[in-house]
This record gives sequence, C-alpha cells and structure tokens, in this order.
Amino acid sequence: MSPGLNSIFLEEIRSQPEVLARRLESGWAEVEEVAARIRRQRPAALLLAARGSSDHAATYAKYLFEIRNRLPVALAAPSAFTLYGSPPRLEGLAVLAISQSGASPDVAAVVEEARRQSRPAFAIVNERASRLGRAADVVVPMGAGRERSVPASKTYTASLLCLAMLSWALDPDPDFRAAIESLPCAAAAALESDAGRLAEAVEGRRLAAIGRGYHLATAQEVALKVTETSYLLAEARSVADFMHGPIAAVDPELPVLLLEAAGPARADMRRLGRRLEEQGVCVLRIGDRLRPEARSVRVRTGLPEALTPIPFAVAGQLFGEPLPYVKTT
Amino acid sequence: MSPGLNSIFLEEIRSQPEVLARRLESGWAEVEEVAARIRRQRPAALLLAARGSSDHAATYAKYLFEIRNRLPVALAAPSAFTLYGSPPRLEGLAVLAISQSGASPDVAAVVEEARRQSRPAFAIVNERASRLGRAADVVVPMGAGRERSVPASKTYTASLLCLAMLSWALDPDPDFRAAIESLPCAAAAALESDAGRLAEAVEGRRLAAIGRGYHLATAQEVALKVTETSYLLAEARSVADFMHGPIAAVDPELPVLLLEAAGPARADMRRLGRRLEEQGVCVLRIGDRLRPEARSVRVRTGLPEALTPIPFAVAGQLFGEPLPYVKTT
Repeated sequence: MSPGLNSIFLEEIRSQPEVLARRLESGWAEVEEVAARIRRQRPAALLLAARGSSDHAATYAKYLFEIRNRLPVALAAPSAFTLYGSPPRLEGLAVLAISQSGASPDVAAVVEEARRQSRPAFAIVNERASRLGRAADVVVPMGAGRERSVPASKTYTASLLCLAMLSWALDPDPDFRAAIESLPCAAAAALESDAGRLAEAVEGRRLAAIGRGYHLATAQEVALKVTETSYLLAEARSVADFMHGPIAAVDPELPVLLLEAAGPARADMRRLGRRLEEQGVCVLRIGDRLRPEARSVRVRTGLPEALTPIPFAVAGQLFGEPLPYVKTT
Repeated sequence: MSPGLNSIFLEEIRSQPEVLARRLESGWAEVEEVAARIRRQRPAALLLAARGSSDHAATYAKYLFEIRNRLPVALAAPSAFTLYGSPPRLEGLAVLAISQSGASPDVAAVVEEARRQSRPAFAIVNERASRLGRAADVVVPMGAGRERSVPASKTYTASLLCLAMLSWALDPDPDFRAAIESLPCAAAAALESDAGRLAEAVEGRRLAAIGRGYHLATAQEVALKVTETSYLLAEARSVADFMHGPIAAVDPELPVLLLEAAGPARADMRRLGRRLEEQGVCVLRIGDRLRPEARSVRVRTGLPEALTPIPFAVAGQLFGEPLPYVKTT
C-alpha cells in the first residue's frame, strides 16, 4: 500500500465516530421495516450473503442473531448460485446480503435467486444505486459515505452497526438500545487506545489472530486488514479450533493476537494466552478489561459484549495501519 | 510429530481404500434411514455441527447437499449452545453432527439441544459408544476402525463417504451410485500419485492452499494437515476470497497449492495459477486433468467433481506427510 493510500485509510479510520453517529440519526426506519417483515415471516433461518470484509460482518451477524435473537443463521456459498448453477431451495428462509459496493455479482446473485423463489431478500449496502441495491426488497443503507481506501474500515463498522440495530428491532430492549446509541463514543475511545504501538512487536511475515464467539469476526477482520496493508500471512481462528490443531504451528516466531473481550469466552482466551507465553510466544492482546502493558491495549467500551466488536474493530484497524512502517523502517 | 507417530499416520493413510470398501459393504441401512427421515420432515435447512477435520467434512457437505440435493446447510456455531447458553430456535431444521471420537462436548451439545427442542438429530461418528453416539436419533458409523494418529486421515475420508452416500440416498441416481462404489479404487490411485514429491518445493514456514466449491474443503483439510505435521502456518481460502484481499500477501516466498479439479471452478483456478506464476510465486497443483510436471500431481479419478474431494484428500495427506523430512534434512 502506498503512503498516499495509507493516509486515506487512516482518515477513514478516524471518521468512524462521525459515520456511526450519522447512521444512528437517520437509519431506523429501514431497519424496523426489515424486522417487521422477518417477524411476520418467521423464517426457520436467515441466509447471509457476503464477501471479503462483509463476510466477517456476516460472522458477527451469525453470533448476534443466534445468541441474542435465537434466529439461526447460514452463510451462503455463492458458488452454488453462480458457478454451479444449482442454488438451494430457499423455502422457509429469508435472505440478507451485506456489501459495501453492492456490485459483487456473487452476492447479488443470491438475492436475485431469492426473488426468483419468491423469498424475502434484504440488503445492507453502502452504494444504494448498485445491482444489489436494486435487487433487494428493502435496503438498509450503511450511510458511510464514499470509501476510497481499498482496505475497508468505516463500511465494516457501519455494517456491524446496521446489524446491531436490526437485532434490536427484532427484540427491542431499552438497555441494548442505549448501548447502541453510545457506539460513536466507544469508537472514539478506541481511536485513543494507541493500539498501533502493538504492531511494533510484530516481526516476520506471519500472525495468528484469535477470538471466540462475537470476536471470531474481529479476528477475521484484523487478519484480513493486516494481510492487505502489510503483506503478512495472517490466520484467524476461534480459540476452540486453534487448540484443536493449529496450536502445533505455534513457535516464538509466530506472534499471536488475542481479542479478549469481557464475556463467557474470556476464560478460554486467558488460558490460551498463558499457555502460549509459557512456550515463549509473543502474545499481543486487545481487550476491554486488560491492564495496559507493553503488549496489551485496553479499549474502554462500557458495552455489552455483543457490541464490543465495533470498537475492537477500530482498535484492530489501528493495529494494522502502521505495520507497513514497522516493516520498512 | 515424532518419526514413530509419522509411520502410524502413513499406515492409516494407506489403509483408506480398504476402509472405504468396508464402509460400502455394510453402511447403507443407516444412511437410508437418515434420508427417509429427512425426506419426511422436509427441513428448511440442515444444521451441521463439527470441529477440526470434521468441520472440513461439514464444508464438503455444505456444497454437496446445496448443489446436488438443493438442501440449504448451516454450520453451527457451537459456542452459542455452550459458552453463551443461548442456542438458536431449531424449528424447521434438522441437525447432523460429524465427529471421529464423538466425545467433543461442543458437538454433542448441539445434538442434545436438538433433542430438547424435539428436532431430529443425526450423527456420523467413528466411536459409536460415545456421548454423541448415544445422543443422536440415528448414528451413521464411519466404520474406519480405531484411529491412532492425531492428524486424522481415514476418518476424514470415511466421513466424506458417509456424506456422499447420504446425498445419494436423498436423491438416488444410478450413475452417482456407481461412482461412489468406485471410490476405493480412486483412493488407491491417489496413493500411487506421488503427491509427496510436491512437498520438496516448499521452503519456509508458510503455505496458502486454495480451492473453490467442493474443494474449499480439501484446501481447509490440507492446510490443517500441513500445520499439524510440519508446523507451517497454512491458510486455506476459496479462490474468490483469495482474490478479494489476501492475494496482496503473495510473494515468491509464499508457496501456493491449488486444488484444481475438473469442474466449473477450474477456469478461475487456472487464471489464478497463471497470475501467481507471472509474479514469481511457487505454484503447486493437485488436479485430475493436469499434465504431470515437477510441481503438478495428477490424480486419476474418473469421478464426478462432487466425489473428487475423497481422492484429492488422500493426495493432500501424502503432500503433508513428508514435509517434516523436507524440513529436517
């Protein structure tokens, strides 16, 4: 990534409190319409279609809707719809697509097929006038403004916000609503977290990013960001799958980033961290209850775990952003 | 992995034609019972629960059931059932668990929850007398015999075979049945493929394994195998997602293994391969229509693409198996 591009990326990272605040001012009507339609239809499951960063937003949606709304979520395999020309029967399902550009033919094909099968199909899109925007029954606009940087930042957190708003609209609860309204502040606090300094400890060309539950999505997103900005090979895993095999690949030359949110997964994450440190591994941490130390960044959120993926993603972007300089200086 | 363990792994890899043949002799009754129950219930989607290698078998099942049977498949997020204690409502769904040991508490919890919600729950298991084996309505036994090596080999291909048999039982077709019956031969041919020699080209500690459609599962399985046997960091991606970002991380020091089966995804795989070679990347290939060359292994299968993941997995195991020697000599 050229230095010029990098400064646009940083500008977009910094704009997120404002983007989230703007979205909260004007975006509830579409979300409530999607929620009303889903409540009426009572689908057995929601089929999500997405690619790239939006696919990580879909991972977040899976945990959010399954845990908070008890609504099963399946992630679409777009090639069944496009390459193989043999899409699944969608009876009893509703479709939700997530895309920044709305131009990905794979993602639009899933929504178009839903329409062909007379199934409801919704889309969270930044570019409303796109193929996907035109194909969906209801469009929830990300409202993130034009994104110029190739590594996505503000459209990722905006899509997470749209998903959180939809989860609220499906099962309203005043505490959750208040927490959603505080997300711009939480994103601003994450910008102050100096997560960038963690990157100084990364040597070599490899990284593992580990989360669980809600933060599997954060691990995926940070791993992709670091890959795009810094040409590292970064692997994202849930702590459970990591312990099941890839832990064999760990050595002192493979730094491991732990996404350690307060919540039920925290004990597992801490156990893994201690085990890795005993093996001499460079363990980096982003969390909301950590004591700040050389390799730990604390993001003060005051949020329920279900919403922490938004400020954690901001901290993860700061972690990814300066890596090119670490490598070239 | 110690040399002693490695020879057990190799013995189990070599036993696969016999394991598959034995499974075909005696395993149809249970598969037909599961298929009959699914046909009766007509679930909106099948929820799959699995961990580790079995999770890759679940990826295979997603493509197989969605494309061949047009039955939507969701992969369970076990932590919703265990850690968060807030499992999704399973109305309209059926559950299928895949596990070698049947002892994974995460996987068993999904099946037990299905029973609590009065939903049908089936399991493909190697150890019948396990927690999972006892919890399921119908057990399809892998029949792979005891597996002593930690990197799974024969239980992976046996679970793929059980899934293919189930797909046939859901939508019988004599050609597909005949192809299933030829799988032991195809596995034997893969054992003759000298895929191990590809490993000689791998230097360093990183690898990317790329597939698409049916062979996303193969890429995941080869990446995990290589990680377990050789302490590499190996990343598995679909070609579509790889082009969407991680291709930025590619350089001459990151070898890329392409799983190149004849089928609709092949054109994309070939385009990616050419682009990588132009960039000076070390590209390795396993395929069924390749001209054998220094970095290409041909697996003669004579199979429809939907069944090639079984012999390709065998070739992938051979590729992973000798890597420790490559590194230590």
